[in-house]
Amino acid sequence: RENFIHLCNPHLEKMKEDILYHFALGTGTHDFPALFGDVKFVCVGGSPSRMKAFIAYIAEELGLGGPGCDYPNICAGTDRYAMYKVGPVLSVSHGMGIPSISIMLHELIKLLYHAKCSDITIIRIGTSGGIGLEPGSVVITRQSVDATFKPQLEQVVLGKTVIRSTNLDEQLAKELMQCSKEIGQFNTVIGNTMCTLDFYEGQGRLDGAICLYNEEEKLRYLKNAYDSGVRNIEMESSVFAAMCNLSGVKAAVVCVTLLNRLEGDQISSSHDILVEYQQRPQKLVGYFIKKSLGKV
Amino acid sequence: RENFIHLCNPHLEKMKEDILYHFALGTGTHDFPALFGDVKFVCVGGSPSRMKAFIAYIAEELGLGGPGCDYPNICAGTDRYAMYKVGPVLSVSHGMGIPSISIMLHELIKLLYHAKCSDITIIRIGTSGGIGLEPGSVVITRQSVDATFKPQLEQVVLGKTVIRSTNLDEQLAKELMQCSKEIGQFNTVIGNTMCTLDFYEGQGRLDGAICLYNEEEKLRYLKNAYDSGVRNIEMESSVFAAMCNLSGVKAAVVCVTLLNRLEGDQISSSHDILVEYQQRPQKLVGYFIKKSLGKV
Repeated sequence: RENFIHLCNPHLEKMKEDILYHFALGTGTHDFPALFGDVKFVCVGGSPSRMKAFIAYIAEELGLGGPGCDYPNICAGTDRYAMYKVGPVLSVSHGMGIPSISIMLHELIKLLYHAKCSDITIIRIGTSGGIGLEPGSVVITRQSVDATFKPQLEQVVLGKTVIRSTNLDEQLAKELMQCSKEIGQFNTVIGNTMCTLDFYEGQGRLDGAICLYNEEEKLRYLKNAYDSGVRNIEMESSVFAAMCNLSGVKAAVVCVTLLNRLEGDQISSSHDILVEYQQRPQKLVGYFIKKSLGKV
Repeated sequence: RENFIHLCNPHLEKMKEDILYHFALGTGTHDFPALFGDVKFVCVGGSPSRMKAFIAYIAEELGLGGPGCDYPNICAGTDRYAMYKVGPVLSVSHGMGIPSISIMLHELIKLLYHAKCSDITIIRIGTSGGIGLEPGSVVITRQSVDATFKPQLEQVVLGKTVIRSTNLDEQLAKELMQCSKEIGQFNTVIGNTMCTLDFYEGQGRLDGAICLYNEEEKLRYLKNAYDSGVRNIEMESSVFAAMCNLSGVKAAVVCVTLLNRLEGDQISSSHDILVEYQQRPQKLVGYFIKKSLGKV
């Protein structure tokens, strides 16, 4: 039985045309089933250039493109997001923070719905600050938690706060963990991921333009996070989990840690080391996709 | 008396080097006073290409660059933000949403501090949804309010909620209004701006992937917003106002409205009309800068 997108919006049926403004795509101007109907895997990440690099990587891994191939940006009509496709894989950038990824996900879920896609797996591949882990470790998220370590997203709708669950697919997390074992190239753990609205004060950094607490208070907070099961901190996982839950899409979050926040705040590793770290979630998810397609 | 940046962080004094990670700039690798010491006006906006267009526009207006000039992206080492400079004007993109602009502002405020800049005026030039205004109208923000119409920003720091004021400079708003009268090319109002964490549900749209309310509830919410003084809705002004307040920087928000939300949700104006609308805040702020420099 095919698993289609569950669209939690009765109003869309009544619209003659749907303009996905931040993608510069629309049902009146683009044939969504023809363009996207075969998509099975969607990988999303903050940086447009990283998502472009990912599509070239996955194309080569799947044997779908030569090393010199160029992949056009499907959202070239805007500079809000970038989108690339090869075979059954779509790669989309989402910018930084909950609001930015939430705009992208609203339009992506509608795109997949209009394209009549089924059995979709969405994986966020990103960067994060680690807690108590060696830099370069990869964290597969068990639950996305808020800044008070609760597995929920508070969202304001028509001025009223609603609470949404941020659970992720347990089976998918285990499959990804198994893939990492098979690759055997870097440390990977399953842990909770804290999702914050700010990179500096919201994550307890001492090096922002504003900081009204001291090092002791900061370390107490990060250690409490660790004790509650948090292994890394980023800024998009909670709304990603909540929206995929509501839409019935299987979702996972795979982030590399760029530093150990118990030891500092500034990301000071060399450019080359950071580039290698950032390739780890791509490698892991690339292997998972190959395996899912029976190509391993 | 010169007005320097007020840095609300005692820890920074102890750091040997400050790496502005998301700008790909650092005090150890870049001479901030030499690169940025003469900056007096900073204009920020969501889209990198719009902020590039703005620097070319302002260069020509100030007679600082020929029509064929190219302006290199100062943050070319990253794709998180784009930054351009001509004379005393810095133009920086901030992406979409409170978290994205907050990361940018932390690093921008530190940049201006390290560069020993003084008497800085920061203006956000952006796009927004209007309420009860003809599309293409420009709104100069009196107060930035949250989704319950309160002039405040709730921020979570070390897991605890703190409330910050989102007032903007009243005198600067009046000066900008006067500039718009002198230009006389488009409708401009001073009004409150609602800042939300989401573009679809958070702004009461009926056309997102998720919508669990009806049209009547939506219109009631938007009319309540109008009655409380809200004239437009966007996604960055509250943290912009709060951080500029804490840092002692004179700040304004000037946004064009792309549609009247009382009449619909989808942005369906033609590309050319939208491009012309988006130039209006640039024109207004360009004129203000020229006037401030005695060039009008």
